[in-house]
Amino acid sequence: MKRIDGRSFDSLRPMQLVTGYTKYAEGSVLIVCGDTKVLCNASVEENVPPFLRESGTGWVTAEYSMLPRATATRNKRDIQKLKLNTRSAEIQRLIGRALRAAVDLEALGERSITIDCDVIQADGGTRTASITGGFVALGLACQKLVAEGVIERMPLKRYVSAVSVGVVEGECLLDLCYVEDSAAEVDMNIVMTSEGGFVELQGTGEHGTFDRTQLDRLLALGEKGAGELHRLQKKALGGMEF
Amino acid sequence: MKRIDGRSFDSLRPMQLVTGYTKYAEGSVLIVCGDTKVLCNASVEENVPPFLRESGTGWVTAEYSMLPRATATRNKRDIQKLKLNTRSAEIQRLIGRALRAAVDLEALGERSITIDCDVIQADGGTRTASITGGFVALGLACQKLVAEGVIERMPLKRYVSAVSVGVVEGECLLDLCYVEDSAAEVDMNIVMTSEGGFVELQGTGEHGTFDRTQLDRLLALGEKGAGELHRLQKKALGGMEF
Amino acid sequence: MKRIDGRSFDSLRPMQLVTGYTKYAEGSVLIVCGDTKVLCNASVEENVPPFLRESGTGWVTAEYSMLPRATATRNKRDIQKLKLNTRSAEIQRLIGRALRAAVDLEALGERSITIDCDVIQADGGTRTASITGGFVALGLACQKLVAEGVIERMPLKRYVSAVSVGVVEGECLLDLCYVEDSAAEVDMNIVMTSEGGFVELQGTGEHGTFDRTQLDRLLALGEKGAGELHRLQKKALGGMEF
Amino acid sequence: MKRIDGRSFDSLRPMQLVTGYTKYAEGSVLIVCGDTKVLCNASVEENVPPFLRESGTGWVTAEYSMLPRATATRNKRDIQKLKLNTRSAEIQRLIGRALRAAVDLEALGERSITIDCDVIQADGGTRTASITGGFVALGLACQKLVAEGVIERMPLKRYVSAVSVGVVEGECLLDLCYVEDSAAEVDMNIVMTSEGGFVELQGTGEHGTFDRTQLDRLLALGEKGAGELHRLQKKALGGMEF
Amino acid sequence: MKRIDGRSFDSLRPMQLVTGYTKYAEGSVLIVCGDTKVLCNASVEENVPPFLRESGTGWVTAEYSMLPRATATRNKRDIQKLKLNTRSAEIQRLIGRALRAAVDLEALGERSITIDCDVIQADGGTRTASITGGFVALGLACQKLVAEGVIERMPLKRYVSAVSVGVVEGECLLDLCYVEDSAAEVDMNIVMTSEGGFVELQGTGEHGTFDRTQLDRLLALGEKGAGELHRLQKKALGGMEF
Amino acid sequence: MKRIDGRSFDSLRPMQLVTGYTKYAEGSVLIVCGDTKVLCNASVEENVPPFLRESGTGWVTAEYSMLPRATATRNKRDIQKLKLNTRSAEIQRLIGRALRAAVDLEALGERSITIDCDVIQADGGTRTASITGGFVALGLACQKLVAEGVIERMPLKRYVSAVSVGVVEGECLLDLCYVEDSAAEVDMNIVMTSEGGFVELQGTGEHGTFDRTQLDRLLALGEKGAGELHRLQKKALGGMEF
Repeated sequence: MKRIDGRSFDSLRPMQLVTGYTKYAEGSVLIVCGDTKVLCNASVEENVPPFLRESGTGWVTAEYSMLPRATATRNKRDIQKLKLNTRSAEIQRLIGRALRAAVDLEALGERSITIDCDVIQADGGTRTASITGGFVALGLACQKLVAEGVIERMPLKRYVSAVSVGVVEGECLLDLCYVEDSAAEVDMNIVMTSEGGFVELQGTGEHGTFDRTQLDRLLALGEKGAGELHRLQKKALGGMEF
Repeated sequence: MKRIDGRSFDSLRPMQLVTGYTKYAEGSVLIVCGDTKVLCNASVEENVPPFLRESGTGWVTAEYSMLPRATATRNKRDIQKLKLNTRSAEIQRLIGRALRAAVDLEALGERSITIDCDVIQADGGTRTASITGGFVALGLACQKLVAEGVIERMPLKRYVSAVSVGVVEGECLLDLCYVEDSAAEVDMNIVMTSEGGFVELQGTGEHGTFDRTQLDRLLALGEKGAGELHRLQKKALGGMEF
Repeated sequence: MKRIDGRSFDSLRPMQLVTGYTKYAEGSVLIVCGDTKVLCNASVEENVPPFLRESGTGWVTAEYSMLPRATATRNKRDIQKLKLNTRSAEIQRLIGRALRAAVDLEALGERSITIDCDVIQADGGTRTASITGGFVALGLACQKLVAEGVIERMPLKRYVSAVSVGVVEGECLLDLCYVEDSAAEVDMNIVMTSEGGFVELQGTGEHGTFDRTQLDRLLALGEKGAGELHRLQKKALGGMEF
Repeated sequence: MKRIDGRSFDSLRPMQLVTGYTKYAEGSVLIVCGDTKVLCNASVEENVPPFLRESGTGWVTAEYSMLPRATATRNKRDIQKLKLNTRSAEIQRLIGRALRAAVDLEALGERSITIDCDVIQADGGTRTASITGGFVALGLACQKLVAEGVIERMPLKRYVSAVSVGVVEGECLLDLCYVEDSAAEVDMNIVMTSEGGFVELQGTGEHGTFDRTQLDRLLALGEKGAGELHRLQKKALGGMEF
Repeated sequence: MKRIDGRSFDSLRPMQLVTGYTKYAEGSVLIVCGDTKVLCNASVEENVPPFLRESGTGWVTAEYSMLPRATATRNKRDIQKLKLNTRSAEIQRLIGRALRAAVDLEALGERSITIDCDVIQADGGTRTASITGGFVALGLACQKLVAEGVIERMPLKRYVSAVSVGVVEGECLLDLCYVEDSAAEVDMNIVMTSEGGFVELQGTGEHGTFDRTQLDRLLALGEKGAGELHRLQKKALGGMEF
Repeated sequence: MKRIDGRSFDSLRPMQLVTGYTKYAEGSVLIVCGDTKVLCNASVEENVPPFLRESGTGWVTAEYSMLPRATATRNKRDIQKLKLNTRSAEIQRLIGRALRAAVDLEALGERSITIDCDVIQADGGTRTASITGGFVALGLACQKLVAEGVIERMPLKRYVSAVSVGVVEGECLLDLCYVEDSAAEVDMNIVMTSEGGFVELQGTGEHGTFDRTQLDRLLALGEKGAGELHRLQKKALGGMEF
């Protein structure tokens, strides 16, 4: 099968991590994956949610939103409908869980880091791009906290990246673009650490089901993609090691 | 390891599917899994969401909510906060996707079935119970539509059930109760068809990560649990076959 | 006139008070009145609304909601419309006032008890069932507070129950079911104490008016019904006396 | 007992019905009862709620709101809290039911009349003033519809007015002002037709209960007050008879 | 050009400032400008917004709302739509800025004054009437605070009033009524101090543009109108001078 | 006075209009003014607001929003507070009015163009940048509609741009950055056409007032700035003339 953009089945789209994209955020990254562009800004705040007050422990959370014209047709803003889009709710919970897997919340101390993932342009894979780019924004913010002496030791424990894989016309593919994603029988988002562990696995077969054999192939593709993404993240973070 | 309620690592909790629990819904089931109790009501409505109008195709969707005192401490109602709980949003999207995998939406015709999953009492596994019980409520509603001649052929294509598995203190367990779930290093929800395919796989390692070996063990447990659940569903639906 | 379910004009429907229906609430009761089923859960919280802070005085309040398929056609959830149903608002204010008439708020101390009344199935009389069942849930919670030594003396002062009466085709009837209620010229909800006093009286003649003679007959029916309900409540609360 | 403003136990406060208070509404009345001032505006709209479409039948409904500084301390606007005040919800449902008792909805034809009751200044009895004044606004709007030939016959069937009564320090009083209302053991709102029938009766004993003897005295006071109010309404509506 | 109500191009409509219109507000004014009627109530509260806490400095803010039937057709209440009308949002920000220009917030001390501007009847110029009338309500509240010794010196520094001007059929007019406003090529709201300075200037040419010459003429009209309004305000405030 | 970034009093900041910034919008522009960056996307939709249905006339409207970390401290999203920020409401009304002044709505036909102005980074002047950039996005969308033959003639009538001016430490300055804006005695936004007419003028003196002399100087600066912006807009739109 020839992919729509000529890639091989196990290739990522051209990927860029533009650090310092905006000037105020403690960590700011524009992640570009093909035509998907997500702005990931990390904000440090000196307070924590009620359930952590006086615990000495910090928190990392995420918010995800699409700009109205990130897609082919305009979407009304959430505030016009007075409802957080349920898809956004699902995605931002995933991003938060994925990024917390990288953090030693006690080392962070009683403060919060919020990763705002705003999709400028969507062409598939916005949630995985948000995790991969969001991790770098989080890393920059943590480096800043350490550099300024606010915290003593780096609260990050490992690299975390995410990539989508899927089955399209029976074939397992890495990093689906929107057209592929729409036609996919199976769609899976894989979040992995640089140590090779799975943080989160979300596979869905809305137009079909999948078996153990397919799952194995998809996981292998995911592992390949994650490895490449970890190298890019490392470069963006100045070679930071754990 | 001894489980808190004395079960073996690969046992489901005592499970009941009480059909006809309420009298108005086209399909009504109370699913009881140990101390978890979820009321699943299927409502048929003669209209579809805007994106399906004049398509001849139907829709199946779900809503999930906990009663305020389904848990150890009282939760405020969503309407008091004017926000759909984001956890509920995430869960009801999962239930909807899982159940649609069982349905031939064209055979359903241009009508909707909404599965309301209201948690009366929560002791872990409410989302998987909602899928397993919701499928039976959906089945009852479809049987009624066929019996009344509203639709010609059964729009269900297969059984779909769900079960949770997880890693607790390094051990892989089937069907976690709340205490186990809270302590789990890895938590995974597995949705399977009676044909043995995966519909949805959601594994999370918020307090750890997991590797391929653990994944394989968890999937094997899930397959075992799903098989038992399909037998219970079949019995509740009068032995309906596909 | 023959009533739809064969009862005499002054008979209550078969009535059950299932205590301990859920396991977490401090007091939990399922009240069944014919086909009407309401789950009443009492939750104790160690705080009070702002207007009572540092007053040494407690508070009792209620919330009322119908599950979407408690009725013949599905009702959208409040959160979908972002508005508390105004009928629910009216009813929960009534329940709260009625139950507070039974309580010595100073004896309760600076804590709140919320009675959640969730209608599982509605066949008329859900608001009066909520008061009658809610009182028992409240009683159970208070007994628990006393038994655990949290408060010194029982803050309840008397039994409070409620029943509906109405005029249907010119005849005065006790405890209307939904079909009778829909056809009623006059509908009245009567809340009474075990001492025979009225706590609340709400009579409405949307399809007609009523005169003093009819009012007297309706009140007599209400007194009869309330007496029977107080006996059932007393039994459910282990014969508690004041 | 001497009343705070020197009235006898069975006297109404000075009462005014200022018709034509604003110029756009089809019917506009400022009702003044002592220091309570409510602006009642009736608006005719050529549509009906969904449940009445193509029924040939009209609808009458009410909305009730207090201006922020109608009371001794400022109340936040509902829109600031994004919630309709539950007290307002309860009251506007009462006003709507009371006024519909006066109307032949078929004679009105398929159109709606909304009565907006906005409290300029509150000193007790705002809900009963809203009904009494709202009826006159409704009457003016109906007279206009008949005069302009929009409808053939007057859709009003009778006068409807409302008044509060209550027990204060053991004594039954007519038309409570705020200070009396706050101290009342029993508070009752009585809605009556000019034919002497009860439309709605709402008695509450939050700080006490009441018995049949007290009820009889309160109803007698209510009948006296309603009679006086019907005479004032008739004068404001140019002596209109049924 | 003959104006619709016979006024000359540089005349204000008949103007009234009725002080003490309601009894609870610290300052209460009904401003009447022709058929435009706005109730302006000033409420003093002993707290400030978060950004001013422990600053020793006070705050003045405004809220603006139209009653549903202030206009020719009924407008739904904000709470029905769960959204503050964006026009109201724009206007209340303008009123707040305009009034703060008159106040020494340090002299006010750490307390807030909220000016509620509720439009009873709208015939053009409601936002400028709200400023002019709101200033008087604010003045009355400040006089009360000084008279009661709550604050030492008058926190007002100058008179502030507002008036609309516009270009209609090529002609510059003072104080547009609704019919003129709807037809205006240019509409401008001018807020001025009694010292002749501009506080705020908002000119809009939605159906046209304007040049420097027209601007000069409009400003001259505004200055004339503002002078007259300052004299009326001074009279309403008992001749208060700065 | 030396300006913070070394500009002369009558200089604009370095300005860029990046067209085609995103790929889906009918017109897409990133406007950069110094450190202020606003993404302006124009979306064409084949429907109009209710008040224009079957009028043959189109509509142009705008929405304005800041990304959470466009500023030095993180702002909560509107949807978290369930309220459109009132500042945003005010600004988007201004943008809409300003852009409609450029359009022949009948030539547009019965369709809508929405200009989404999302602030990526804010350093003063975001509302004027939104108008200037939004005009170019609107122009690109109109050119596309004409090129595709959807409409016959260009619905734009003139160039419209906007710039801020202000008085800082007594001196009149063009194009204030955030630091200057915060310290300004007077702040004015000027919207002008390429023909030299004023479309909108909004001057505010929250920390002071201004007189005719200052106004004249500010207008002269605005005219200079607007002229330069019109040249940049023309270049971005391929030299389009009217």
